[in-house]
Amino acid sequence: MDELCQTPLVTSDDCDFDLSDDDLRAARTVKWAITPAPQVAAWVAELDVRPCPVVLQAVQDAVSRGSFGYSPFDSLTGLPQATAAFQAARFGWEVDSDLVVGCGDVMSGVGLALDYLCEPGPVIVPVPAYPPMLGILPLSGRSAVPVEFTKSDNAPACLDLDAIDHALGHGARTVLLTAPHNPLGLVFGPEELMALRDVVNHHGARVISDEIHSPLVLAGARHTPYGSLPDTAHHTTTVTAASKAWNIPGLKCAQVIAGNAADAATLRSLPYIANHGTSPLGVAATLAAYRDGGPWLDNVLVHLDRQRTLLDELMATHLAHLPYTRIEATYLVWIDVRPAEVADPVLAARAAGIEVSAGADFGAGFEGFARLNIGTSAERLTRIVAALGSAWR
Amino acid sequence: MDELCQTPLVTSDDCDFDLSDDDLRAARTVKWAITPAPQVAAWVAELDVRPCPVVLQAVQDAVSRGSFGYSPFDSLTGLPQATAAFQAARFGWEVDSDLVVGCGDVMSGVGLALDYLCEPGPVIVPVPAYPPMLGILPLSGRSAVPVEFTKSDNAPACLDLDAIDHALGHGARTVLLTAPHNPLGLVFGPEELMALRDVVNHHGARVISDEIHSPLVLAGARHTPYGSLPDTAHHTTTVTAASKAWNIPGLKCAQVIAGNAADAATLRSLPYIANHGTSPLGVAATLAAYRDGGPWLDNVLVHLDRQRTLLDELMATHLAHLPYTRIEATYLVWIDVRPAEVADPVLAARAAGIEVSAGADFGAGFEGFARLNIGTSAERLTRIVAALGSAWR
Repeated sequence: MDELCQTPLVTSDDCDFDLSDDDLRAARTVKWAITPAPQVAAWVAELDVRPCPVVLQAVQDAVSRGSFGYSPFDSLTGLPQATAAFQAARFGWEVDSDLVVGCGDVMSGVGLALDYLCEPGPVIVPVPAYPPMLGILPLSGRSAVPVEFTKSDNAPACLDLDAIDHALGHGARTVLLTAPHNPLGLVFGPEELMALRDVVNHHGARVISDEIHSPLVLAGARHTPYGSLPDTAHHTTTVTAASKAWNIPGLKCAQVIAGNAADAATLRSLPYIANHGTSPLGVAATLAAYRDGGPWLDNVLVHLDRQRTLLDELMATHLAHLPYTRIEATYLVWIDVRPAEVADPVLAARAAGIEVSAGADFGAGFEGFARLNIGTSAERLTRIVAALGSAWR
Repeated sequence: MDELCQTPLVTSDDCDFDLSDDDLRAARTVKWAITPAPQVAAWVAELDVRPCPVVLQAVQDAVSRGSFGYSPFDSLTGLPQATAAFQAARFGWEVDSDLVVGCGDVMSGVGLALDYLCEPGPVIVPVPAYPPMLGILPLSGRSAVPVEFTKSDNAPACLDLDAIDHALGHGARTVLLTAPHNPLGLVFGPEELMALRDVVNHHGARVISDEIHSPLVLAGARHTPYGSLPDTAHHTTTVTAASKAWNIPGLKCAQVIAGNAADAATLRSLPYIANHGTSPLGVAATLAAYRDGGPWLDNVLVHLDRQRTLLDELMATHLAHLPYTRIEATYLVWIDVRPAEVADPVLAARAAGIEVSAGADFGAGFEGFARLNIGTSAERLTRIVAALGSAWR
């Protein structure tokens, strides 16, 4: 992290969350575009922040070069090297850049890993899960084995290793890990991940680790890349991106970090058409983010840490009867709305002017939950939770 | 076309092909990035042209709005309406905008049609074929039935309807049409397309029509959308984009035009993750191209028509012994290099400083052919063909 902080900067690193609803609607991206005024958007994982200046400058430069054609091959972009350098600087993971393969977005990368690296067979998905993790499995000809997180009072949720062991013993061949976890905001420690590794190795299974939220670990926690642990390289495919932390998912650039040379060779040997998803603007933005976007990101993390504290105060004031996760990473909070006894948390929130994500989308049995996006200004979060307080009495 | 020509313009409509090799390399897209100086790139289908001013302005505006998040749903972008209006104005095809579904690029759209609209079973691919058409089939779990174009002296190549009929009678379920055709530069007339339709209907099969080159029909020819013909709607999926004509494939926006409401409903009912490929910058660029980019496109067509004539002169001077297609559309010319008796046309061209596309990639048996990109300046085309004249003696 220190190396990144010393990188010379193109311009200001202050992150600016002081945007009006109209400013946000003007960007015409899905979070606000779908939400007519005066509704307030707190659903899909976009941040309500002005673009990181160095990223914006990189995109403007690429636009002024007319960089609208096909992305060049990874060997010519610098993306593998920038990805490896970021993983090393931020997480202490020394990745061989030859193992990095660019792709359009994290879910494309998960799809590549499923289709071309993982055996056929059911896939274990800890739930609640990021909805596309469940959506992609039938497209890949695989069934999901949902495994609920274990939960005890006063402790964060944990991977249910017994249930994962059982499922792997009954035909499942792959574990879809999301680390840090969306929607639970969990950061998994090395002990928990090594326990998962042992179970996976016992069954000769594989892990796909979605680490898109890894740059968004908040104060007090530390991200451990699953693939950085000993004895995981032969079975792990990591997928990551700058797209969540720097809020650029529409620019189309993610990275598969293959666990080993054989897996990387398999991905590189696919017909071009299997993976032609990066945009040159996304590559330019990602290079800028990984190389020079660290200080801005650190300021975002300070802001999100404050939002987390503010949320505690707001929940205590308006929704003290509802359990929710105290996030260690991400800006997404999982709220148990069942004590409110509303028929449908999303419809109730919508009637109060707030759009949240429906728990039902994150797995069967989560109809009474909702996911709240706190990646916004303090002022807007205050408005949002006050309104939810009336919706979810 | 008249309507488009009368559209008020943001700025100049002159197309500018006066770019140095260094200018083109600076864009860092694949055509020139992969080709170190002093090699000259004449391979992948990117145009050596400055961006269309109205498209560039639209992208710059979207960048300045910070439009880097997820694309909104089709119902909110205006993309279906703009696509339908362009098809009506340019080709006289009245498309119901409810049948238009956005996707990341044409090959993603072809993949969606194959995977979710077409029965399993072999797929007929007229060859030589755009290489990804062959590459995508195994990814979709289907085998290719290559059907060579018929060719008689002094007449353009034609679809071999007897061979297509035979293949459909022996298990093939889908025809992959590329119209206008890449790499042959053919524009199919309504009679030929209706004859294809009758064969397809006889067997109850389907057609996927890749019409990405339809805006690039040159003087003397006229594009007929296959899906505009009577009695095709029930079996046709058209895929198109502004990406080829306005040279913006890296911006990620194409359009599936479903043949009927049931097919459109099937595509819209897929999990979000099956089709999440558009970029908001690609959508903004495409809207500008379809709405206001007609005059610039018309100037590109004038330039490409001149390039076609220049090529005739250059071929007569330098390569009079090599047959080649006189293109009716596209800026891609298919050259029969077999009379030159070089071991490998691509390596011979490379040794002379020119990168062309290898015929072998377009289907088995085409090792003696090459595809030449003439979408460049007159000066560069002159250099290119002179060098090929020494390479392919």
